[in-house]
Amino acid sequence: MSESTEPRDEAAALDAADELAARRADFVLTDEKDEPVVYLDGNSLGALPRTVPARLAEVVEHEWGRLRIRSWTESGWWTAPERVGDRIAPIIGAAPGQVVVGDSTSVNVLKAVVAAIRLAREDNPARTDLLVDEATFPTDGYLAVSAARLTGAAVRALPAEGLPGSVGPRTAAVLANHVDYRTGELHDLPGITAAAHEAGAYTVWDLCHSAGALPVGLDEHGVDLAVGCTYKYLNGGPGAPAYLYVRHDLQPRFDSPLPGWNSHADPFAMAPEYEPADGAVRGRVGTPDILSMLALEEALKVWDGVDIAAVRAKSLALTDFFLCRVDHYAPAGRLECLTPLEHDRRGSQVALRCADAGAVMDALVERGVVGDYRRPDVLRFGFTPLYTSFADTERAARVLGEVLGER
Amino acid sequence: MSESTEPRDEAAALDAADELAARRADFVLTDEKDEPVVYLDGNSLGALPRTVPARLAEVVEHEWGRLRIRSWTESGWWTAPERVGDRIAPIIGAAPGQVVVGDSTSVNVLKAVVAAIRLAREDNPARTDLLVDEATFPTDGYLAVSAARLTGAAVRALPAEGLPGSVGPRTAAVLANHVDYRTGELHDLPGITAAAHEAGAYTVWDLCHSAGALPVGLDEHGVDLAVGCTYKYLNGGPGAPAYLYVRHDLQPRFDSPLPGWNSHADPFAMAPEYEPADGAVRGRVGTPDILSMLALEEALKVWDGVDIAAVRAKSLALTDFFLCRVDHYAPAGRLECLTPLEHDRRGSQVALRCADAGAVMDALVERGVVGDYRRPDVLRFGFTPLYTSFADTERAARVLGEVLGER
Repeated sequence: MSESTEPRDEAAALDAADELAARRADFVLTDEKDEPVVYLDGNSLGALPRTVPARLAEVVEHEWGRLRIRSWTESGWWTAPERVGDRIAPIIGAAPGQVVVGDSTSVNVLKAVVAAIRLAREDNPARTDLLVDEATFPTDGYLAVSAARLTGAAVRALPAEGLPGSVGPRTAAVLANHVDYRTGELHDLPGITAAAHEAGAYTVWDLCHSAGALPVGLDEHGVDLAVGCTYKYLNGGPGAPAYLYVRHDLQPRFDSPLPGWNSHADPFAMAPEYEPADGAVRGRVGTPDILSMLALEEALKVWDGVDIAAVRAKSLALTDFFLCRVDHYAPAGRLECLTPLEHDRRGSQVALRCADAGAVMDALVERGVVGDYRRPDVLRFGFTPLYTSFADTERAARVLGEVLGER
Repeated sequence: MSESTEPRDEAAALDAADELAARRADFVLTDEKDEPVVYLDGNSLGALPRTVPARLAEVVEHEWGRLRIRSWTESGWWTAPERVGDRIAPIIGAAPGQVVVGDSTSVNVLKAVVAAIRLAREDNPARTDLLVDEATFPTDGYLAVSAARLTGAAVRALPAEGLPGSVGPRTAAVLANHVDYRTGELHDLPGITAAAHEAGAYTVWDLCHSAGALPVGLDEHGVDLAVGCTYKYLNGGPGAPAYLYVRHDLQPRFDSPLPGWNSHADPFAMAPEYEPADGAVRGRVGTPDILSMLALEEALKVWDGVDIAAVRAKSLALTDFFLCRVDHYAPAGRLECLTPLEHDRRGSQVALRCADAGAVMDALVERGVVGDYRRPDVLRFGFTPLYTSFADTERAARVLGEVLGER
C-alpha cells in the first residue's frame, strides 16, 4: 500500500511542538511482547503510570506486611480519602477540602442525588422532580430512579440541551453528565448549573468523561455536588475508587444515605448515635480500600505541574487532527461522526458510527490500535493528552482507513 | 525477672500437636526490623499472606500495564466479584453462586437491610420494624437507621439475647452481628434466625468478626442475607472489598437500593431501563476495584484444604490457653474478662477490661505484642488460627502480666 509520508511529517512536527510530550514517558504504552500500542482507550481505562508498581509494592510489603495495623496512623492510611481528594481537586477546579475519595462512581451517585434532593426539600418540600439527561451513562439513570424511589421524588429524563428550559419550581435536582460517554459531546456545565440555581434547584455533575481531559471549574461555576471515576483520564487503575465533591458551604447540610462509621465526627468513640463529621470527610462511608487508594495517589503524581488549559488545548488539537486524517483516509460514506465538531461541544473522544463497528474494532486491535466498541454501531477513540501523541493519532486514522478499505 | 519455663514447654507441646501449624509460614509476621511480632490484631487487619505481593505485581505490571482494557475479558477481571465470592463461600458455609465481592461492609449493610425490608413488605406491608442488636458495630446501626428512613421502617435496638423473644408480626427484618466486635461474644445465629423465620421476618447477619474464625453455616441455618469484610480473618488487605450473601431462593426477589450497571442483566447493552441480572451478580453495583479484589483472591488461597472445624478447635484452644495464662500472670483484680467463658458463646478474641487499657496497650506494642485498645477501657486480643501460635499466646499473656505488674 502506498502512503504519503506528509501526514506523518505533520504529526512529527506537532509532537515536536507539544509542551506535554515529555509526560508520555511517565506511562507504560507497550503490550505483552513489548511492542508499542496506539492506545486510544484511556477514556475507559487509563494506562499505567510507571511509578505505581514500586509504590504499590512498598504499600503491600512494608506498610501492610511489616507494620500491619500501625499503618492506619503511621502510614497515613486513615486520612488517605481526603488527602487523595485534595490531589484531584485542582484537576477539577476545586479548592482543597471539598473532595473525598472512596466507593464506586455508582455509590457516589446515590449519595449525591439523595443528598441533593434532601437539600432541595429542606428549602421547599414541594420540590419533587429529579431531572436527568436522558442519554446518561446507564448507571446514573438507574441510581437516579433508585434515589427517587427512596426519597419519594420523580425522575424526568430529558435531552441535556433541554435541561435549562425545564428546571422550575418543582425541580429538586438535576443530574447530568459533563461529557456524554457515547458521543463525546461536552454539555454546558456553566449554563445548566446557572439555570438550575436560578430555579432554586441543586446540580449533581458526573465528571467521569471530563476530569483530566478538560477544565471543569467546579468552584468557578458554583456546582453543588459532583462525582467521578479515577480510572479513565486520571489513570488510577482498574476500578480505582471514585470521588465525591460537595461544595464547601453545602457540607454542613450534606445528609448522606450512607452514613458509615468513617464519616462519624469521632469514629473511634464507637458511639451508637451517628453524628456526622464536618467537611469532605462527611462523604466517607466504610473502611477505605487502601491498596487501590494508594495506587491512585501515586498515579496522580503525573499531574504535578500540569496545566489543565494545556491539556485541553492538546486534546482539541488531537481530536481535530484525528478527524482531519480520518476524513482523508477513510472511504467516503463509511463513517458518520457522532462527536460535535464545535470545540465548545466536544470532550476528548471521537465517536464514529459505522455499520460493522464491532468487526472493525476487532481488526484495529489486531493491528495495534486500541479503541473500543459500543453496541450496536459505534467506534470510540479516546485521546488522553498526557500520553497520546500526534503520531499515534495519525497511525490510528491510517489503520482505520486501511481496515475500512479492506472490508 | 525469673519465670517458670513450664508454660513455654506447654505452648511448645501444643504447637507441635497443632494440625494448622504449617499455615503460619504462609504469612509475614515480622516487623520493619525483621523482628518477630506477636500479632493479636488479626481481628482488625489480617497479616500479609506471602504470595500476595508477587500476584499483585503481576496484576499491575502485566494485566493493567501491558494488556490494559483487554484484561477485563482476557484476565477475567469482569467476573472477579462472583469468582472471589465463590472462594469465600465455603468458609462461611455457602454453596457456590450466593456470594459476591465488592464495596465496603457498610455499603453492603445498606443493600442487605433495604432488600430485607422490601422482601418483608412484599410478603406483608404491615411489617414495619427493623430489629438491631444494640451493641452492634456502629456502622451497622447508623446504616440501619438510614435504611429505615429510606423505606419508612422503624428501628428497634435490643440486646442480642432479646431478639428471639422480640420478633413478631410487625418485624420486617433483624440485623445482628455474629460476633460482638468489642466483647468477642458469639451470638446465637441458628436460634435468632429460626425465631425470625418463625415470625415471618428476614435476617441480615454481619459476619465481620466470625468469618474465617469459626463455622458460620449460612446455608445450614437458612440465613437470608449476610455481609462481611475480608480484611480481618480472611487476610485480604487494608480495606479489601466486602461481600454480600443472598440465599439462592431469595435472589430473584432481591431488590437493591444500589442498582448499578454491573448488576444489569446485559450491562453492555447500556440500556436506559434497569433489568437486574440473575444470581449473586445482582448484588454488584459499579465497576469493581480490581487491584484490591485480586489481592484478596490471592490471599484466599491460604484457605485451600483448611477445615473450618479445625480452625474453630484451635481458636478455642488458643483463647482458653490465653485466659488460663493471663489468670496465672496478671496481678489479681487488674483485669475483668468481657468475653464469655462458655465455648458456645465465644468468638475468636479475648476482651479484657482494664482501667488503664490505653497505656497498657501502648506498653504491649512497645514490647512486640500487638493487640488493640477500644475506648474507654478495653484491651482486645484477636486469635487467628492460621498464624497465631500457642507460643505467641503464652508470650502475650506473660508480657501483659509484666506490664500490669510494673504499672
